[in-house]
Amino acid sequence: MLTILHHAAQLVGIAAAGECSVLANGSLLIRNGIIEWAGPAAEMPPITEDERDITWIDAQGKVVLPGFIDSHTHLLFAGSRVDEFEQRLRGMSYAEIMARGGGILRTVERVRRASKEELKALARPRLQRMLQFGVTTIEVKSGYGLTPADEIKCLEAIAELNAEGPWELVPTFLGAHAVPPEYRSNREGYIRSLCETMLPEIARRGLADFCDVFCEKDVFSIDESRRILKRARDLGLRLKLHADELSPLGGAELAAEMEATSADHLLCISDQGIDALAASGTVATLLPGTAFFLGRAYAPARRLIERGVTVALASDCNPGTCMTENLPLIGSMACMQMGMSPGEVVTALTRHAAAALARSDRLGSLAPGKQGDGIVCNVPDYREIFYHFGINHVECILKRGRVVHTS
Amino acid sequence: MLTILHHAAQLVGIAAAGECSVLANGSLLIRNGIIEWAGPAAEMPPITEDERDITWIDAQGKVVLPGFIDSHTHLLFAGSRVDEFEQRLRGMSYAEIMARGGGILRTVERVRRASKEELKALARPRLQRMLQFGVTTIEVKSGYGLTPADEIKCLEAIAELNAEGPWELVPTFLGAHAVPPEYRSNREGYIRSLCETMLPEIARRGLADFCDVFCEKDVFSIDESRRILKRARDLGLRLKLHADELSPLGGAELAAEMEATSADHLLCISDQGIDALAASGTVATLLPGTAFFLGRAYAPARRLIERGVTVALASDCNPGTCMTENLPLIGSMACMQMGMSPGEVVTALTRHAAAALARSDRLGSLAPGKQGDGIVCNVPDYREIFYHFGINHVECILKRGRVVHTS
Repeated sequence: MLTILHHAAQLVGIAAAGECSVLANGSLLIRNGIIEWAGPAAEMPPITEDERDITWIDAQGKVVLPGFIDSHTHLLFAGSRVDEFEQRLRGMSYAEIMARGGGILRTVERVRRASKEELKALARPRLQRMLQFGVTTIEVKSGYGLTPADEIKCLEAIAELNAEGPWELVPTFLGAHAVPPEYRSNREGYIRSLCETMLPEIARRGLADFCDVFCEKDVFSIDESRRILKRARDLGLRLKLHADELSPLGGAELAAEMEATSADHLLCISDQGIDALAASGTVATLLPGTAFFLGRAYAPARRLIERGVTVALASDCNPGTCMTENLPLIGSMACMQMGMSPGEVVTALTRHAAAALARSDRLGSLAPGKQGDGIVCNVPDYREIFYHFGINHVECILKRGRVVHTS
Repeated sequence: MLTILHHAAQLVGIAAAGECSVLANGSLLIRNGIIEWAGPAAEMPPITEDERDITWIDAQGKVVLPGFIDSHTHLLFAGSRVDEFEQRLRGMSYAEIMARGGGILRTVERVRRASKEELKALARPRLQRMLQFGVTTIEVKSGYGLTPADEIKCLEAIAELNAEGPWELVPTFLGAHAVPPEYRSNREGYIRSLCETMLPEIARRGLADFCDVFCEKDVFSIDESRRILKRARDLGLRLKLHADELSPLGGAELAAEMEATSADHLLCISDQGIDALAASGTVATLLPGTAFFLGRAYAPARRLIERGVTVALASDCNPGTCMTENLPLIGSMACMQMGMSPGEVVTALTRHAAAALARSDRLGSLAPGKQGDGIVCNVPDYREIFYHFGINHVECILKRGRVVHTS
């Protein structure tokens, strides 16, 4: 099976390292789902196959990029939290919203009551919308179950949705998203349940690639987070951390210490935290949609980049603090609100996002040998994707070399 | 011709005054393009027409609202300014960008070279995108021609695009958008050309409803703006003003003094300016997309609302400082960044936007007697349109009672 995207006005992100590469008038050959060749259209190798086995895609006047990767989402959930949204706009504090039964635990209650099939049915249109915005690989976290059975129900739902495709899903266990109400006076009991019951079973069944912890004042402390992450690492899971979102607790430093694959949010990261990430190679995953949704200050993207940290961008799609599947819009926010250049944004949504999912070997660029995940955008310059914002410019999506969506 | 939208989960914006009205399980009757009845589905008057003359639209589980109105755009233009966008992100000042041939005058150069047909062909997909986001009435400004012939070319293009429909366009003459290069050492000559050549011909030919002026330091002063607006008013045009965008120059006070229909931007409006608008009834049209695009502080929406000013929201769609046709996203920004409630945003995008175009008699609500401009959104609660952001929830659009788009 051969797929040929030819004569793109710009072929973006061929390089598997360094700055975002932009090749004018480029073509791309994908054989059996793997990129075989990428280069100037005039230099394309001769094709000897029977024409009937070839899918030709004319990309003249258009831009071809690697499929976008959303490396941080909570998109498996039940129940809208639109009333909480309005309460916050009217000045209510998160503490007051919690006191009225809002916040994460409200979603937990809805997810516990939902069946696996119901959760899958609710997630499918969200995945479909993400795909339409050019996102071909999506991390999805559990963390709204908070019992062994409900967390496993969620991770099984993610596995089954992954099998349905065409999207590729990366499952993350986030049992340490909150202490559930039944353990409110017994935190230790919940942490034991995480470490002794949930993590071993999830690891044994291969239900998660990553273990993540919401490390924050009044959620899980640095010491508790370290303990959970260590247990996960010992069981063979890779690590992520919700770090320094609401306060500079030292989450970035902990992520670096634990050799986590990524530290996420980082709105309040300290200079020491930045240095720690730069030294450890842990990816900083920034989620500007959440800062936008909550009207907060954005993460210090420029300082992170200038000090050598690998910066990825993700949506944080979730019902409480960032209800969107529009990842290119997150890229526009990164430009306009955090001063990232369009090239930095493309890299943050592709190669660096692949690194945040420990899938750099296969995903994140259009270099030969990588998986054939690409998108065609109906703009003549890739920067238009972020400049001309709030508009979906994606018109054709390939996953493993197959056209899985056209608009 | 009868169009019936029935059993909407919410029928929003029936009231022609007061706070945003939300009626559960509502129906709407539109006869010959005019709303005849709106109310609880159970109370719908009996229909005696032959069924074949009726378009039935089932709105169960969905929200019906008045068509959105974009009361401030510069969408008739040629040429992208994406490189300027990147220059700004890399820290270049507007003065430096201008020195490199960027800014408004770059678009002026492209528009002067374009034919009327070319300008229309470039504008059509923008209008189509706006329509798809539920915008049924759109103000369009000239202001990239800056010669009598080029300004009239642009206004004729707007008139011809309006005649094409299905959108309804409101033309504004913005000859006072910048002093063109050929008048750089003769400002007085350009103002005379505006007042003595362009305005009289435009008024005589009925090519514009409004005259607008970019009142700003280094553009048109308060005194120059007053002089141009007075001339326009004497010729029978209504007035708008780009006011207090970059500095608190007193534009809002001038707009109030001149009884302008709207004062737009207002990022730097003073307390006296707010009081003046409240007293005059001049609509404050806020353009948060521009603040977002430029990374600037937003206009003080809450202070304006609390002091009794009528607040509208618009896109400011233009290639230099806000390249988007996504008006609902502007509404999300107003919620999340300016603290407006979803109800205030709906009113700002409909009834108050109609007031900003002096078309309150016909447009902006679903009250009986108004024009049958409505949209159906595939959400069960109107607040989801802004909460679930960056996603187009509009699935059916009516203009004058006719279905003009379905997704």
